[in-house]
Formats: sequence, C-alpha cells, structure tokens
Amino acid sequence: MNETYDDSNIFARILRGEIPSTRVYEDDHVIAFMDVMPQGEGHTLVVPRAPSRNLLDAAPETLGPSIAAVQKIAGAVKKAFAADGVTIMQFNEPASGQSVFHLHFHVIPRFEGVALKPHSGKMEDPEVLKQNAEKIKAAL
Amino acid sequence: MNETYDDSNIFARILRGEIPSTRVYEDDHVIAFMDVMPQGEGHTLVVPRAPSRNLLDAAPETLGPSIAAVQKIAGAVKKAFAADGVTIMQFNEPASGQSVFHLHFHVIPRFEGVALKPHSGKMEDPEVLKQNAEKIKAAL
Repeated sequence: MNETYDDSNIFARILRGEIPSTRVYEDDHVIAFMDVMPQGEGHTLVVPRAPSRNLLDAAPETLGPSIAAVQKIAGAVKKAFAADGVTIMQFNEPASGQSVFHLHFHVIPRFEGVALKPHSGKMEDPEVLKQNAEKIKAAL
Repeated sequence: MNETYDDSNIFARILRGEIPSTRVYEDDHVIAFMDVMPQGEGHTLVVPRAPSRNLLDAAPETLGPSIAAVQKIAGAVKKAFAADGVTIMQFNEPASGQSVFHLHFHVIPRFEGVALKPHSGKMEDPEVLKQNAEKIKAAL
C-alpha cells in the first residue's frame, strides 16, 4: 500500500494552472475538463479542488459538492451529445484502474450499441476536445 | 427516451421490504446490500431511499448522503476483503448498462490482475452473499 497524496500529480498541476486543460465547468469546489484519452466522445472528468488520493481518503465535505457537479456534468454531456445514457466511474488504486492519484470522477456519454473504448493511452486531437468542450458548455 | 420512475422496480420493492436483500448498512438516507449477480467478490450496492430513476433525475439533497455512504462502504469492502482497490460505477439508462431503474452505486473490491466479471446474470449462492455481508459489517 502506498496510499498517500503526492501533489506533483497531473490533476494537481492542472488545478494550480501549471499545465493546461480543456475546461468545461468550475465552481468553488471542483473543476471539470475533457479527458485527453477519452473512452468515448465527450468523456469529461470532474476533479475536486481539495487534495485527496481518491475516494477512500477524501474529506467528507468534498464529496457532496463533487457528486453535485458530477450530476450537473452528466446532464450536460447527455444533452450536448444527444447521448442515450451516461456512465459514471470512479477508480481507487491501480487495481481498479486509477492512474492519476488525485480524486476524480469519469463522466462518459453512452450510445446504444457502442462499447466504451479501452483506456488505450491514445491522445485525442486537442481541436476535437475543444469543440466537445464548447458543446458541453453550451448545454450547461 | 422513457426517463420516468416506476416504483415496481426491484430496489423499490427491497426498500419497501417486499423482497429480501442481504443488507450490510442502512441509515436515514440509504441502504446498502450485496449485489446478487456480483462482478467480483464483495460487490455491494448503495441505494438511496429517495425515489429517482438514476443520477440524472435525482434530487440534489439525495446525492451528498449517497456518496458519503459510498465512501463508507468502499472503505469497508477494501478492509473486509483485503482488496487492492475499489471500483465505483453508476450507470444511467440502458445504453450505460443500467438494468434496475432506481438510482444505485456499485462498490466493487478489486484485486491486482483480476478483471471484473461480466454482468452475466448468474446468481451468487445466498450463503456466500451472507458470509460476505458479515465480513463487510464487521469492517464498518
């Protein structure tokens, strides 16, 4: 077990503005931006500002505002992409698929008969991410 | 789209006590019980008492207590099964894999090198579910 928080993780750096993200939403508690390796069109991440490695060590007061933002983004991506459904996933530790160790929620539009793409490591075209972010912002 | 709430769904019936469940936790806002078709050992469901079809139509005041219970159960299943991680999934509409139309969160212990089992429809032995529930209750 290595369940500590390391603030050099990429989402902490995005939160500090050290590296860019294609943002769709922010409030006092969370930011939401496009996943750069989407498992489906419109795959968005909701990231609380407060530091925690994942759900297991998150401060309780972080969680309510986080899930409220997840609900908001879920509704927006469903509308933005005329999706048939939305999948929410949240991974804790590598055995679960977690690869960035700052709590985050995946919000993924789903379409009938279309499986999620594997987490391949393929980076999406930034222009596509930007266009998708604009659609989500318009739906919020 | 058929995004309405039908209170004849199986989780509403469990909430009303009309059919049994292997419960591990309850409070004023949620109940948690063993998934009868587990995708991994210790697969538990967190179900808010308040009626909603899924996350998209849930009342905001339902969400905070639900994710607080998800966090609690995630910690308990990790401890109970000495798991390496925990996966949280929440499905909205059939395109996402939702098959019971009352909001629920999947909490699944994960182990290095062990993939999730497909949602096969195979019922687990009730005695196994009962033993697993006891382990989780002891860890809470």
